[in-house]
Amino acid sequence: MIITLTTDFGQTDAYVGAMKGVILSIAPHTQLVDISHEIAPGDVRHAAYVLAGAAPFFPTGTIHVVVVDPGVGSSRRAIAARTPQATFVAPDNGVLSLCMHESGQVEYRQLSNSRYHLPQVSCTFHGRDIFAPVAARLAVGADFKDLGPLVTDPVLFSPPPVTRDSLGCWIGQVWHIDHFGNLVTNLKSEILNFEFQIPTLHIKVAGRHIAGLARTFAEREPGELLALVGSSGCLEIAVRDGSAARLLDAHTGDKVLVWISDESKSG
Amino acid sequence: MIITLTTDFGQTDAYVGAMKGVILSIAPHTQLVDISHEIAPGDVRHAAYVLAGAAPFFPTGTIHVVVVDPGVGSSRRAIAARTPQATFVAPDNGVLSLCMHESGQVEYRQLSNSRYHLPQVSCTFHGRDIFAPVAARLAVGADFKDLGPLVTDPVLFSPPPVTRDSLGCWIGQVWHIDHFGNLVTNLKSEILNFEFQIPTLHIKVAGRHIAGLARTFAEREPGELLALVGSSGCLEIAVRDGSAARLLDAHTGDKVLVWISDESKSG
Amino acid sequence: MIITLTTDFGQTDAYVGAMKGVILSIAPHTQLVDISHEIAPGDVRHAAYVLAGAAPFFPTGTIHVVVVDPGVGSSRRAIAARTPQATFVAPDNGVLSLCMHESGQVEYRQLSNSRYHLPQVSCTFHGRDIFAPVAARLAVGADFKDLGPLVTDPVLFSPPPVTRDSLGCWIGQVWHIDHFGNLVTNLKSEILNFEFQIPTLHIKVAGRHIAGLARTFAEREPGELLALVGSSGCLEIAVRDGSAARLLDAHTGDKVLVWISDESKSG
Repeated sequence: MIITLTTDFGQTDAYVGAMKGVILSIAPHTQLVDISHEIAPGDVRHAAYVLAGAAPFFPTGTIHVVVVDPGVGSSRRAIAARTPQATFVAPDNGVLSLCMHESGQVEYRQLSNSRYHLPQVSCTFHGRDIFAPVAARLAVGADFKDLGPLVTDPVLFSPPPVTRDSLGCWIGQVWHIDHFGNLVTNLKSEILNFEFQIPTLHIKVAGRHIAGLARTFAEREPGELLALVGSSGCLEIAVRDGSAARLLDAHTGDKVLVWISDESKSG
Repeated sequence: MIITLTTDFGQTDAYVGAMKGVILSIAPHTQLVDISHEIAPGDVRHAAYVLAGAAPFFPTGTIHVVVVDPGVGSSRRAIAARTPQATFVAPDNGVLSLCMHESGQVEYRQLSNSRYHLPQVSCTFHGRDIFAPVAARLAVGADFKDLGPLVTDPVLFSPPPVTRDSLGCWIGQVWHIDHFGNLVTNLKSEILNFEFQIPTLHIKVAGRHIAGLARTFAEREPGELLALVGSSGCLEIAVRDGSAARLLDAHTGDKVLVWISDESKSG
Repeated sequence: MIITLTTDFGQTDAYVGAMKGVILSIAPHTQLVDISHEIAPGDVRHAAYVLAGAAPFFPTGTIHVVVVDPGVGSSRRAIAARTPQATFVAPDNGVLSLCMHESGQVEYRQLSNSRYHLPQVSCTFHGRDIFAPVAARLAVGADFKDLGPLVTDPVLFSPPPVTRDSLGCWIGQVWHIDHFGNLVTNLKSEILNFEFQIPTLHIKVAGRHIAGLARTFAEREPGELLALVGSSGCLEIAVRDGSAARLLDAHTGDKVLVWISDESKSG
């Protein structure tokens, strides 16, 4: 059985190791897979984004544990979610939103059955004391229904919205900035469908104008700003052999405009 | 068999990979678990702290390899330690101190039997040439006694001391600063026992006064300084959704005072 | 079967997790081993260096996947290389050069058989869409010959050259700077053979002179600059309990001189 881990714990502490120890003590034959421990501290949307980019590629039945949990110890619930493809164990703070988005039928349970937790549960480390043991017990055959009562109102947020103005200009935003400094937008190639084929496509972001789409980084000169459809199927702004985030001083949430025109709106 | 790795090697070099290759060449069915490779370079106390926070959660029989080894190649010994719960393989520089602290009976051996090492041992990378192969051979059944002679005087240091002044004020220190900037102190909740229940508990650290304990981060406002009992059972100073280390410009070793009073000593 | 991963993807994105998911979906019993995901972005030489330092220690038959791929989506080929010891899957950009250097007979194949790829191949993430599935299918028994046609002209670069001037002075360079700030040079102890035994060996780097070789860091005082033969068999410049890179403001490619003399050339 595979259990993946996605946390904001970093790698200078014992937190990740303690979780792994708890899991292997209960389910010794688990295949542990680190997705990321470098989620920005407390950044639920970052975690949701990363999880949604990785989880769909795992085998059916994989258990994904997510611990980005700024509300630990408060009244926020701990939950598990089961889809036809996978099981998720996480705080009920929206971190699963993007995975559930297109998952079809999902069953949510509150992790209230303390028999599946460690005997002593701290107020500040439910990753070790609740999420890890619950995931491990599921891996060795615990019944999903036994975790606790059904949850019918899990916290779920929507991806950032895309709008279109009266002139037909799409308005999206920078959704994620990756390790390379690429700006991943929320403008999906399906939405823009027709436009992506058009050579006169225009993009404006952080005060800069980009004309046309590249297919790959290599089609541009080193240091040149470019736009392309990235591996997640969304429009990305990048710099060949460089960082668009640094070049443009861009941030998550920055507005991105896309339109078709013979005349540039830039400047 | 599980072998965990705790090093200060970082992740930009071949060092960790070489150790993993050596282990898997000798013991192909080992389950390798990274605890941390981001121990501060040469910081034996940091490594001891992290190891002690993770090791107790692993299954009985786990082998923990620790390579934080500023004295590599010098006369410092290489050792293994066996407790009823686990086996540790490490340089004899105190890095196991906090794990041994409450381990009951421990047997130490010097890793002098070169039959368990790689054929060629470098002067600067005993992680690859001694510690990894010794751990792997233990994993496939080597006799602990064969590693080398008993060690009766391993290097062990104590946790930083807690004292109490004539007015009853506990004096401890910042023991560890975690990834979130939380200041973990050496003031254990058991020691302070009675005081932790008292609403008029006062804490002073880095020139700042904190009145009362929180149970969770969520009980305070974002950005607010707070004190709570952390997941290790020790008093922690934290900032909700922020970094206490940055806010207070605090460092490991900074003095922490705890007392009960109707009047604040701050200011 | 063991599959190792070496990438420049960092750990804040879904990229590594997606690759792991793809591999485990095809080859569920694979033992995944991270060598590094902290290769400098697009730095093929860094990746080649790290891979060559780790791969030789893995068991025969290990599959190494390397994704440092600034030319992704361009006409650069995707290849696999099979040696008597291991199989490598990587872009054809020279990243395998240092592993092939002394590997004896190598068979290269172009990864043109799309039956081994994911059904949809993006233009920007061949790690997930080509390299991971090819490695996984090899792990479950795919025939190496089926991957695609033979490649007879893979991109291979040589290690940086060592020369010797008319006075017998060896001229090499800083080849790699490690996590500790040690300057690993390309001057192999075999080349310098005789000289390394001689107490009057002199080294000049970044304007500083070092007389004699240490055997270990511990032979020098904390903060002192020293030279020694490192774990890769090459001359290294280091600072005990410190960073030579920072002390000398040294960079990869900086010239390193080694000579024997009774008089120092420094100053």
